Amino acid sequence: MMKKFNSVLIIGLGLIGSSISRALIENNLANNLYGLDKDENVIKKCKDLNLLIQGETDLEKFDFQFDLIVICTPLSTYKDIFQSLADFVSNPTLVTDVGSTKMSTIKDFKNMKTNNNMTFIPSHPIAGLEKSGPEHGFSKLFQDRYCIVTPFEHNDEALKRISEMWKSIGMTIEIMEADKHDRVLAMTSHIPQLIAFSVVGTATELESHMRDEVIKFSAAGFRDFTRLAGSDAIMWRDVYNKNKDAVLEMLGRFSEDLSTYQKAIRNNDLEFLQNKFNQSKKIRKEIEDIGQAGSFDPTEKKN
Amino acid sequence: MMKKFNSVLIIGLGLIGSSISRALIENNLANNLYGLDKDENVIKKCKDLNLLIQGETDLEKFDFQFDLIVICTPLSTYKDIFQSLADFVSNPTLVTDVGSTKMSTIKDFKNMKTNNNMTFIPSHPIAGLEKSGPEHGFSKLFQDRYCIVTPFEHNDEALKRISEMWKSIGMTIEIMEADKHDRVLAMTSHIPQLIAFSVVGTATELESHMRDEVIKFSAAGFRDFTRLAGSDAIMWRDVYNKNKDAVLEMLGRFSEDLSTYQKAIRNNDLEFLQNKFNQSKKIRKEIEDIGQAGSFDPTEKKN
Repeated sequence: MMKKFNSVLIIGLGLIGSSISRALIENNLANNLYGLDKDENVIKKCKDLNLLIQGETDLEKFDFQFDLIVICTPLSTYKDIFQSLADFVSNPTLVTDVGSTKMSTIKDFKNMKTNNNMTFIPSHPIAGLEKSGPEHGFSKLFQDRYCIVTPFEHNDEALKRISEMWKSIGMTIEIMEADKHDRVLAMTSHIPQLIAFSVVGTATELESHMRDEVIKFSAAGFRDFTRLAGSDAIMWRDVYNKNKDAVLEMLGRFSEDLSTYQKAIRNNDLEFLQNKFNQSKKIRKEIEDIGQAGSFDPTEKKN
Repeated sequence: MMKKFNSVLIIGLGLIGSSISRALIENNLANNLYGLDKDENVIKKCKDLNLLIQGETDLEKFDFQFDLIVICTPLSTYKDIFQSLADFVSNPTLVTDVGSTKMSTIKDFKNMKTNNNMTFIPSHPIAGLEKSGPEHGFSKLFQDRYCIVTPFEHNDEALKRISEMWKSIGMTIEIMEADKHDRVLAMTSHIPQLIAFSVVGTATELESHMRDEVIKFSAAGFRDFTRLAGSDAIMWRDVYNKNKDAVLEMLGRFSEDLSTYQKAIRNNDLEFLQNKFNQSKKIRKEIEDIGQAGSFDPTEKKN
């Protein structure tokens, strides 16, 4: 059983931030939960949902300190957030985040004004949904998922405490170098997401009569891409900006590979296609076997 | 209430064929259901599941006629199937299919030996799952989905009868020209599927330590692609071969569009990315609004 946090501040109360709040409450891991968000409506929603004792749009409004701060905002906000935290924090405080890139996160932290009270353990809980906003969060979002932690300084105690927090809400911890994290996630997350946006974009630009039909008959594969493409635009914009090198590298590989399929189709090379498709099928099997496949229900949930 | 079929032959008893069998039984639409499949094990499975009265690996084994024949095999088999049907059919018989391309289907039918007893109404029920085999079929697969029907000759009665059959198992009928069908489906189905195979293929070819991690951390978007990539290799190989022109055209458009994203990332054009992502999000909303989004459960189903 992990030692409870006394007072936790969650910065950014969207899908992830609000789900962390729910999970901390449900598992009795924090005495007092506070929230910071630039949007007053979001704070109001969270209060109505009983996710916070107090929520503010301005960090300065808090006249006390926190023992844990979790940053759950788009990556482009980190620099300013670290700067304001450097001014605010006056007691020893653990800081973690949930950002999808880790090199940039660490760089932003290192570039801030020195504050020896702050100990930062970067995290990336690999969990999410295409919905945005606190109303869509839920406490089980993290259950059975991995959390990659990328410590950049030696601090066993802080690492242990943050790891325990994620474990207590159902996650499995993986310690990884930040640069490796960014390359792996470019492939498993950033590229699939970009391609999903791009395929959906291509469909949008078809002649209008075709466009209507593409939407109507989307159940045949396209809808899976649109599910990803339903995700938050600002969050993703920032990911591509912050993980530019790894994304461009993986995108290059993908484009090369796609050309080989294109060529095989043009040349009626059925054997090539069948072999490639069978290889992909095996990968799917492996993901199902390790219990990371999620479950898809092809029927419609009736309201 | 539609008039029941007396005896129906389903050719190819995989996911779709077996689901049609289940749906016809459940809705009491056929007196006698028969099956033809090249694989004896598949026939045995279907008999054990009570989906057929009689199943054979050879059409000649049937010494009676059918009033409806539904072809549910990969597109590369159509030519031979039509040929053997032309020899077999001696009474007026309705024939339909479930193939993902329609121009090639009609061409294969027209190229067969003339048999005036056969009336062919090509169909494409837009429903499926990444699983293969009769054990994964289920009767509700077609519920709330569209079925595109592409008649190429004027025969109101036959069209009505086939349309009623699909409607009776839960589908909404759309009549469309075959060439339009092939272009729409290239975009909503064939391209997303090809890209899914290709992304998963790219991941397979990463250095082995990266590959393991890509599988482990697939919950971040990649898994949606692998779900599609779990589909049957032969079925898809045939689709790309039979719908070559439309697929290459749409693939060309997609590649051009993807290049604009790549360039925007390279040039830090955040505004371009954000605008494009927001446009894609709107498409997702439209698909949800018309009830064609399916439902995704991010948690694992425990066995």
